[in-house]
Amino acid sequence: MAKIATILTNLYEDSEFTDPAQAFEKEGHEVITIEKEAGKEVKGKKGGTVTIDKSISDVKPDDFDALFIPGGFSPDTLRADDRFVKFTKAFMDAKKPVFAICHGPQLLITAKSLKDRDVTGYVSIHVDLENAGANLHDKEVVVCQNQLVTSRTPNDLPAFIRESNKLLK
Amino acid sequence: MAKIATILTNLYEDSEFTDPAQAFEKEGHEVITIEKEAGKEVKGKKGGTVTIDKSISDVKPDDFDALFIPGGFSPDTLRADDRFVKFTKAFMDAKKPVFAICHGPQLLITAKSLKDRDVTGYVSIHVDLENAGANLHDKEVVVCQNQLVTSRTPNDLPAFIRESNKLLK
Repeated sequence: MAKIATILTNLYEDSEFTDPAQAFEKEGHEVITIEKEAGKEVKGKKGGTVTIDKSISDVKPDDFDALFIPGGFSPDTLRADDRFVKFTKAFMDAKKPVFAICHGPQLLITAKSLKDRDVTGYVSIHVDLENAGANLHDKEVVVCQNQLVTSRTPNDLPAFIRESNKLLK
Repeated sequence: MAKIATILTNLYEDSEFTDPAQAFEKEGHEVITIEKEAGKEVKGKKGGTVTIDKSISDVKPDDFDALFIPGGFSPDTLRADDRFVKFTKAFMDAKKPVFAICHGPQLLITAKSLKDRDVTGYVSIHVDLENAGANLHDKEVVVCQNQLVTSRTPNDLPAFIRESNKLLK
């Protein structure tokens, strides 16, 4: 079963964390939430809360099998801290599964990991994705090189979860 | 005196709206807040509120002398609505003064108005600005072609206000 690093901070889009996390755990995978500070309670845009399992200072990409980046305004906050950018880049460089929804691909842009990759994302970041050299598709889910799964909004969650789970089998 | 269109929605960075707005009004300029809906009360990240003067549907770029884009998460929300992107592009195309701080330049990216322009912005959007073809400077304020003023954070407000006011003389 997979250990899934999940990078998350305040103003995450609630369902984009809870729905995939529950679905991954139902399949027997482990979801480990990571922020600056272990034990901190982060708040979603809709008022949900999540207690952070690990500090980014105490984890290594090698400890995990996959990376999950929920959306909302959380990814933009995380990418202002270079530790999260380097952590993200390590999963992309190692070709481990990466699941990013909504604003999640902002971390992949800052990690400079999207050149010639097929992706989608929230409408507000479409020009950013194209400018990063990615091939943008306005679809509910895009799977690139059997490694990177991206989606646009909470409406796309069933497709996002289905394709992400396939890569964890 | 100048009429300054100010595009703003929820989760704006409070001081990045209030400090320049007060400074512009002190000089005799008029600050008109614009969102989707006139009369709506929008909330800042720090809890402040602003009542919106005009709906984007009821204004034209020709009605204004300058554009002001406060930061926070407001600009990313606004650029998901093409009316705000076109409104922004019109000021850039007309070479009217544009003042954008923190995440404000995200609207300029989506409007595709930054190629070969000198800019700064919040650290999280630095790669986005470079990918958009801009010349990025990590400085408190950048004035480009006597038309576009950009800054990084609330700490840069004195320089941002000083240079913006110069272009309104």
